[in-house]
Amino acid sequence: MTEQKKIGEFRDKVLAHLDARFTTKAPETLYEPISYILGLGGKRMRPVLTLMAVDVFNGKIEDALDAALAIEVFHNFSLVHDDIMDDAPLRRGKVTVHEKWNINTGILSGDAMLIKSYQFFEGYEPDMFKKLVSLFSKTAIEVCEGQQYDVDFEIRNDVAIPEYLKMIEYKTAVLVAASLKMGAIIANASHSDADAIYEFGRSLGIAFQLQDDYLDAFGDPKTFGKQVGGDIIENKKTILYLKALEFASSDDKMELERLFSEKPEDPEAKIKRTKEIFQKTGSVAFLKKEIENYTDSAFESLEKISAPEENKMLLKEFGKQLMDRTI
Amino acid sequence: MTEQKKIGEFRDKVLAHLDARFTTKAPETLYEPISYILGLGGKRMRPVLTLMAVDVFNGKIEDALDAALAIEVFHNFSLVHDDIMDDAPLRRGKVTVHEKWNINTGILSGDAMLIKSYQFFEGYEPDMFKKLVSLFSKTAIEVCEGQQYDVDFEIRNDVAIPEYLKMIEYKTAVLVAASLKMGAIIANASHSDADAIYEFGRSLGIAFQLQDDYLDAFGDPKTFGKQVGGDIIENKKTILYLKALEFASSDDKMELERLFSEKPEDPEAKIKRTKEIFQKTGSVAFLKKEIENYTDSAFESLEKISAPEENKMLLKEFGKQLMDRTI
Repeated sequence: MTEQKKIGEFRDKVLAHLDARFTTKAPETLYEPISYILGLGGKRMRPVLTLMAVDVFNGKIEDALDAALAIEVFHNFSLVHDDIMDDAPLRRGKVTVHEKWNINTGILSGDAMLIKSYQFFEGYEPDMFKKLVSLFSKTAIEVCEGQQYDVDFEIRNDVAIPEYLKMIEYKTAVLVAASLKMGAIIANASHSDADAIYEFGRSLGIAFQLQDDYLDAFGDPKTFGKQVGGDIIENKKTILYLKALEFASSDDKMELERLFSEKPEDPEAKIKRTKEIFQKTGSVAFLKKEIENYTDSAFESLEKISAPEENKMLLKEFGKQLMDRTI
Repeated sequence: MTEQKKIGEFRDKVLAHLDARFTTKAPETLYEPISYILGLGGKRMRPVLTLMAVDVFNGKIEDALDAALAIEVFHNFSLVHDDIMDDAPLRRGKVTVHEKWNINTGILSGDAMLIKSYQFFEGYEPDMFKKLVSLFSKTAIEVCEGQQYDVDFEIRNDVAIPEYLKMIEYKTAVLVAASLKMGAIIANASHSDADAIYEFGRSLGIAFQLQDDYLDAFGDPKTFGKQVGGDIIENKKTILYLKALEFASSDDKMELERLFSEKPEDPEAKIKRTKEIFQKTGSVAFLKKEIENYTDSAFESLEKISAPEENKMLLKEFGKQLMDRTI
């Protein structure tokens, strides 16, 4: 079976389980927004990763479905609340929950999703339940902390690179890592294997997010999902901006800071000039190297896992494809 | 030791444990609002009830402190998010979290509190952990549903009494009930005793909330904590209003509906007339009877608990004092 086919099969299992386990009830006003956001689609990457991890350790896919659902519902909870905080009108091309209903609905239905995600673990035996729920809570609180750092960084001018990396690690990578580790736990993998697959996910998640920063400025408009130059238009202090400031001559620094204090109606010239500064300061080269390092580190962690090579093929292919976007 | 002294002692233990277990960390912007709301005071009724329940079944108070804290942090989470939804400026006489900071902070710090509350259970062994967390999630989701019903009822004109009772049960009573049941579980009480103490809390919680509806209209301004007549001023459809509409002659019905469509600058005449209609329709008598029934039901549940009478004295006194506010 090809990798793509197997991933598709896992996704179908997640979706079937979501249908089976998520039944709406009264009050409709609380549960309808939850059905709505869960039905918007998306790649279902995180729950699929949980199933992939179980597969690596020859566990039973069926045993992982509840945990996979918990992860997916939690992820969607975080999207609903983040979209309120970011005042985002659209999510996956559809109106966000707080736009379709209102902010209060977004808050309360989000809260219910967070609690529901905990309930999905109740099918596990006590020992397994405690392991999974503890990892889940640790991860969830880190996701909140990551979101808070992201908010804080918007108004700070002195964000250091390690802080930025911690922010994306918490905001994005730890949930990917935990999705994989849960699969390992469910398949009764050893501690070191569970930690190694967590590290694989963490490094890959950071690499992916850094690549997103790169592609946002230098991606191909035809293949990159979002508007190329979007971060520059929004004056978003990504790693490219932070590192360019650090490396820049005082003239370039002044120009970059000026560019990032404006929101011109036609942003083309601003985008062009910003990208030039990103390039000439060496910020782009730095970022590319960081992406490479985190990607290498991810695959090294994969090597450490004591499972047959053939079992690891799917994750390896997945990682390759993920990092193979037009960089 | 007098009841009051023992309750005070329990409260001190809760507060000391809160200090010991709740340490703020980075990002400050996430944790400072949590410290703030947890430090605003309040009676700490719910965590104290958990300790009281452990005491009924001769359990160790120390074993219940983590669960008590989970309950208290969860309760405060719900206050932070409810205050956003209700656009409330004050909580316990101090500015609310979203007023002191902003709505986004209220949402995110609230989320972190909900997750933190789950983490407080991690000190329990797996079997106990699963029992407590499952009860906690069930209760938490009911609290969300109760809040949603409350929101929904504001714009509905056809709320039936059983629906109203379910709303206050979910919004208030189930958390009181779960606080007690957790104490019973931790003290290894029998299932039927755990259920009986839950029922005691549920009935008492409903009686308390109904009494609040009564006192809001007919309480003594000197002893009632809130503004007497507040619900009438806000056109809040409490059980007094719903039952008055049901019992009223068509003239009184029309007048009451008219009164509840207005917000006069000087509300005195409106309050006076509304209270007259509440009285003459028999709505007040109905409510008093309901309060009595739920209170009786609570004490009957207490009788069913197979613990020595002296162990139950504290809960009995607590219930009596609670229902002995100037009714």
